[in-house]
Amino acid sequence: MAIYHTKMNPKLPVVALVLEVVMLILFGIFVRYDHDADAKDHHNNTKAQKNEFYFRYASFQDVHVMIFIGFGFLMTFLKRYSFSSVGFNFLIAAFGLQWAVLLQGWLHHFDSSTMKIHIGMEGMINADFCTAAVLISFGAVLGKTSPLQLLVMTVLEEVFFALNEHIAIGILQVNDAGGSMVIHLFGAYFGLAVSRVMFRDGLHGETHEKEGSVYHSDVFAMIGTIFLWMFWPSFNSAIAGHGDDQMRAAMNTYFSLAASLVATFAISSLTSREGKLDMVHIQNASLAGGVAVGTCADMMINPYGAIMIGFCSGIVSTLGFKYLAPLLESKLKVHDTCGVHNLHGMPGILGGLSGAIAAAFASEEVYGLSLYLTFPTLVPEDKNTPLFKRLHEWSDEIEPGKGRSPMVQGGFQALQVLISLVMAIGGGMITGFFLKHTWWGQASDVDCFEDSMYWEVPEAEGFTEVKTDGEHPLDTQDEL
Amino acid sequence: MAIYHTKMNPKLPVVALVLEVVMLILFGIFVRYDHDADAKDHHNNTKAQKNEFYFRYASFQDVHVMIFIGFGFLMTFLKRYSFSSVGFNFLIAAFGLQWAVLLQGWLHHFDSSTMKIHIGMEGMINADFCTAAVLISFGAVLGKTSPLQLLVMTVLEEVFFALNEHIAIGILQVNDAGGSMVIHLFGAYFGLAVSRVMFRDGLHGETHEKEGSVYHSDVFAMIGTIFLWMFWPSFNSAIAGHGDDQMRAAMNTYFSLAASLVATFAISSLTSREGKLDMVHIQNASLAGGVAVGTCADMMINPYGAIMIGFCSGIVSTLGFKYLAPLLESKLKVHDTCGVHNLHGMPGILGGLSGAIAAAFASEEVYGLSLYLTFPTLVPEDKNTPLFKRLHEWSDEIEPGKGRSPMVQGGFQALQVLISLVMAIGGGMITGFFLKHTWWGQASDVDCFEDSMYWEVPEAEGFTEVKTDGEHPLDTQDEL
Amino acid sequence: MAIYHTKMNPKLPVVALVLEVVMLILFGIFVRYDHDADAKDHHNNTKAQKNEFYFRYASFQDVHVMIFIGFGFLMTFLKRYSFSSVGFNFLIAAFGLQWAVLLQGWLHHFDSSTMKIHIGMEGMINADFCTAAVLISFGAVLGKTSPLQLLVMTVLEEVFFALNEHIAIGILQVNDAGGSMVIHLFGAYFGLAVSRVMFRDGLHGETHEKEGSVYHSDVFAMIGTIFLWMFWPSFNSAIAGHGDDQMRAAMNTYFSLAASLVATFAISSLTSREGKLDMVHIQNASLAGGVAVGTCADMMINPYGAIMIGFCSGIVSTLGFKYLAPLLESKLKVHDTCGVHNLHGMPGILGGLSGAIAAAFASEEVYGLSLYLTFPTLVPEDKNTPLFKRLHEWSDEIEPGKGRSPMVQGGFQALQVLISLVMAIGGGMITGFFLKHTWWGQASDVDCFEDSMYWEVPEAEGFTEVKTDGEHPLDTQDEL
Repeated sequence: MAIYHTKMNPKLPVVALVLEVVMLILFGIFVRYDHDADAKDHHNNTKAQKNEFYFRYASFQDVHVMIFIGFGFLMTFLKRYSFSSVGFNFLIAAFGLQWAVLLQGWLHHFDSSTMKIHIGMEGMINADFCTAAVLISFGAVLGKTSPLQLLVMTVLEEVFFALNEHIAIGILQVNDAGGSMVIHLFGAYFGLAVSRVMFRDGLHGETHEKEGSVYHSDVFAMIGTIFLWMFWPSFNSAIAGHGDDQMRAAMNTYFSLAASLVATFAISSLTSREGKLDMVHIQNASLAGGVAVGTCADMMINPYGAIMIGFCSGIVSTLGFKYLAPLLESKLKVHDTCGVHNLHGMPGILGGLSGAIAAAFASEEVYGLSLYLTFPTLVPEDKNTPLFKRLHEWSDEIEPGKGRSPMVQGGFQALQVLISLVMAIGGGMITGFFLKHTWWGQASDVDCFEDSMYWEVPEAEGFTEVKTDGEHPLDTQDEL
Repeated sequence: MAIYHTKMNPKLPVVALVLEVVMLILFGIFVRYDHDADAKDHHNNTKAQKNEFYFRYASFQDVHVMIFIGFGFLMTFLKRYSFSSVGFNFLIAAFGLQWAVLLQGWLHHFDSSTMKIHIGMEGMINADFCTAAVLISFGAVLGKTSPLQLLVMTVLEEVFFALNEHIAIGILQVNDAGGSMVIHLFGAYFGLAVSRVMFRDGLHGETHEKEGSVYHSDVFAMIGTIFLWMFWPSFNSAIAGHGDDQMRAAMNTYFSLAASLVATFAISSLTSREGKLDMVHIQNASLAGGVAVGTCADMMINPYGAIMIGFCSGIVSTLGFKYLAPLLESKLKVHDTCGVHNLHGMPGILGGLSGAIAAAFASEEVYGLSLYLTFPTLVPEDKNTPLFKRLHEWSDEIEPGKGRSPMVQGGFQALQVLISLVMAIGGGMITGFFLKHTWWGQASDVDCFEDSMYWEVPEAEGFTEVKTDGEHPLDTQDEL
Repeated sequence: MAIYHTKMNPKLPVVALVLEVVMLILFGIFVRYDHDADAKDHHNNTKAQKNEFYFRYASFQDVHVMIFIGFGFLMTFLKRYSFSSVGFNFLIAAFGLQWAVLLQGWLHHFDSSTMKIHIGMEGMINADFCTAAVLISFGAVLGKTSPLQLLVMTVLEEVFFALNEHIAIGILQVNDAGGSMVIHLFGAYFGLAVSRVMFRDGLHGETHEKEGSVYHSDVFAMIGTIFLWMFWPSFNSAIAGHGDDQMRAAMNTYFSLAASLVATFAISSLTSREGKLDMVHIQNASLAGGVAVGTCADMMINPYGAIMIGFCSGIVSTLGFKYLAPLLESKLKVHDTCGVHNLHGMPGILGGLSGAIAAAFASEEVYGLSLYLTFPTLVPEDKNTPLFKRLHEWSDEIEPGKGRSPMVQGGFQALQVLISLVMAIGGGMITGFFLKHTWWGQASDVDCFEDSMYWEVPEAEGFTEVKTDGEHPLDTQDEL
């Protein structure tokens, strides 16, 4: 029988303090302001409005709300795990965004002349994006991990994330405005792989008594759902190109989400004998449209294309919750507390493939010359080609590309779906084996899904008899 | 005795799926991006900042929060109806915004040369506005309707809404920046008319036991209230003219809401024997200032004018909750679950009339030449008049108008109050008669205000004895 | 034995109505739109984008959310005081912002030629800032005061606030972008002084039974915490200079908060024998980084400087909650319900001193010439000096300053820390003595921390026996 070492003092504080001091040192060595934030690069008032701040700060704040309120509250649905859901989410996102600034800086925009990372508006958004992947993985292992394990998972996962992102953006040069492949698909399968490696028979023989919701915890979770749903257009448009790209990304996401929500209600009712709606579906599958439209959010898919993608993803996701998730657990020993496979995994694949198709059929006829802005790899490599000259006359934003055809770009997009899958599952398994040791402080089977392992927990409303025992107020039902 | 058909499967899923497929087809035929979202109309970076996205997207997101979090949580105050409040709100808003894009597109900005609706930032805001009216009506019938009825109500109400909006904006050409007349007044009286037609004696003989709040459901409702209160300046300014109009609309709303809140606290305490505050008043009447300043939000009413309007509306609204609502139910058989008559109905009329007065007394002395931008109907019809020439020299935004005097414009504004009332009550009665049939799945009297008719409901906290019965955990009190 | 006069009718409504009417009259006499909101100053569409609305409205709305949702919900942690926390917060902020517009207008930007206050975007933000100080003070006296006392405290505190702000900005001309000194330090010590003067032995002999949380009230409080945490970058950057200043202020705050959060988790676990996390720490100390980076938010402290400040403040704040707060109560008779001393007081001092140091070491080498924009007092007084001419050539925003050296400016900054402390404690004691009289309606010792003194309170979930008594449903436990 396993021995559990759930006492977090001094393990957790020591690791957290060391990590934060390391952040401080690495930031001191490497991180400086970019030109939009540096006083030396001050522009006068006429040009101030061209600061990226005014193009992206409102979107950034919406993304920030999704990370901290959205993911945090979405996971409060468990009856006795709300402190941990929202609290650990808070911790790993706040640490994770610092670590992401360093990793993404080193890999994607390291200034080798000054040996510095210059951080600005897009860097902040990308850091938040990176933490989103970790929070998705958190959803798969929710209730079964200690805060220490989660911190360490954050450290490791972000390395794999940054590598995969580097392949996608730096090497294959694929489009993924809303991160269907790089964030959602990756985060989901990484978490599932961790969960698979750490699978415990004792925990899942029958549905764990505490692994469910109560009335008000479901209402709290709806706060998370709705903030995610509302601000997803900002997520998918946050780092899209200025102007029409950003506008289009927001609009496509708006329509895709609306369609996936209606589909979710319909399928939830249709798959219930009584036609009763299931809160789990509404809380999660309604968001699938945001995931699935992510890669092609800034492409010319038109509102009806967005609705089609959203509609399909809502159906797939709800069916996943209803029929696939139980199979995954019983057949493959993959336990997925929040159902991230249904919300982020499958819709992420759908999104990656939709993006590949949309890219493969992109044309100058539809995009005009801005085809070459939305897909910079389609610009010729050679500055002397007639096409390049024509493009350069039209816009000085144009830089030499790869000379790919749309079909080839579509192929690369599809390839990235596969690579993200491999990187996620591989990275997740490695991380899982590393975290499996009970030294990291995971709870015993019976104490999973239970705040009081890691938190001072006050009485719950209405449990008047609780006060006397004083330590574990929520457990009185069990003891009867 | 009526027989109730509350089983939603397959009625609800079939209707929802058919509606969504219809949306998909109609969007495919009719809806395309507007010039701010179309890649073909890409502007270079210098002009990108003139994209409507940067003028209105932050406001749009605030409106979006009001629609989904604001209205959704405001209605969670009922003790056993939080899932339905926030969930049905979610469903009908997400479906409703798609349907609104089509209706408003056909009626207001249909491009007859291409047979297309071109949708952009303002279209998205207006679609959200249209759903706001439906959600207000939902407040009047909250707890007494099935999700299927609500979906059908959305389909029908938006048609009447778009017609009334067409009269207001297309024909009478009145100003209504924040929609006091077109959204709030219309939504309230439409809902009241539906509620009147569907009135059931059995439900309201004495106050329904479940039609009340519990402690935490009232706190949840405050989330809705406060998000509505905070973001109302964005609602009223979202589609106002660029620059000072938008700034003024936000500021007037800010002050009006502050004043209505103070008035609400005062009157709530004053009308209680003990001076105790009533959560129903705080949750609702505090918002009356946002409704009442809607029509004249972008007019030169000055901050003191805004405070006066807010102050009066807070008083009227609170008194309405205290004294008028019970009379409406007992004398006129109009049951109004959320008190939309007090929050949206009366303040909407007040807002419409305030707007008429503010328009009637508008003058070049106060507005300068931008009088003719705020009230385009005051521009002469004839381009050869000296006034038109003077205006055209000043600004090339000026287009020929109707040559109305401010007084005449004020008259048209007042007329629209009446028309909105007639359209709302007429449309609501028709809709009510259509929805009255029990085939649509409304609950029996005793099962109203109860989530478990349409939702899988988990146990409530503290009801330990509930687990055994397993189906309707919240009903145990009744069975004692 | 003291007699308590908690009946709020007619005291509260009369005072509230009189105050609001006074606001209306004073706004009528003094307050008009500024040039960004006045139709007469309408700019054509080309210039509309230079309206302050587009530079600051999104930030303003984030600040607004912090004031109403952030502070309001942060204080809902008490088990029986959620209505009051969120409701009184609502009332005093809505009244307070009106009063602040007048006070700040008279003192800081009164147009003596027209005898008017011209209000615009920055005025609205500053009014919200002023109410923030009052809400911080509210945190110190939470649960022990009547709504009437709070209204009167708002009236008085804002006078002292405006005077202190006038010293800081008008006389000493210090930098305080995020208000570490003017808002946080001031609000905290003002509230502590009020609390000290109104200290009651009977209330605090042993920890009051109702002065604690229940499970879901802690989750509600996390809504407040997280919205404060997320939007603090907007708070600290809301009135910073256009462009890089605003960008830098947001970024520094982002990193400071992340570091203070990690520190809070570490210290909370480290100071618990079992290593269990304490919700009080997470809810509060995690925010200390936002307070402490306030003064130097727009200075060139670099991300690592922000992380260092955040890290230290998180540690100091958590230790304050754990060890200092109990001493303050037992030794100095200062009872601090929300721990504002730990969250706003000490981090505010830390922030003021950090700002003094950052200012003292500011140099042209680091800032370039925009040193003189960020610190306008460093510009020479004499327009004929070579430096002034050089600056004027570089930017026409430059105006004659005070010719201070950075070190002198640092000295003035440090002096303001002291002045804020004196003004806060002095003003708070005067206010406390004024409010001490029981006529103002504070509750008796046993009825503190209890909504039902001032609110109609519905049943709580699970308290089935409550219904019979009908008046005070939450008290049944006490009566057993």
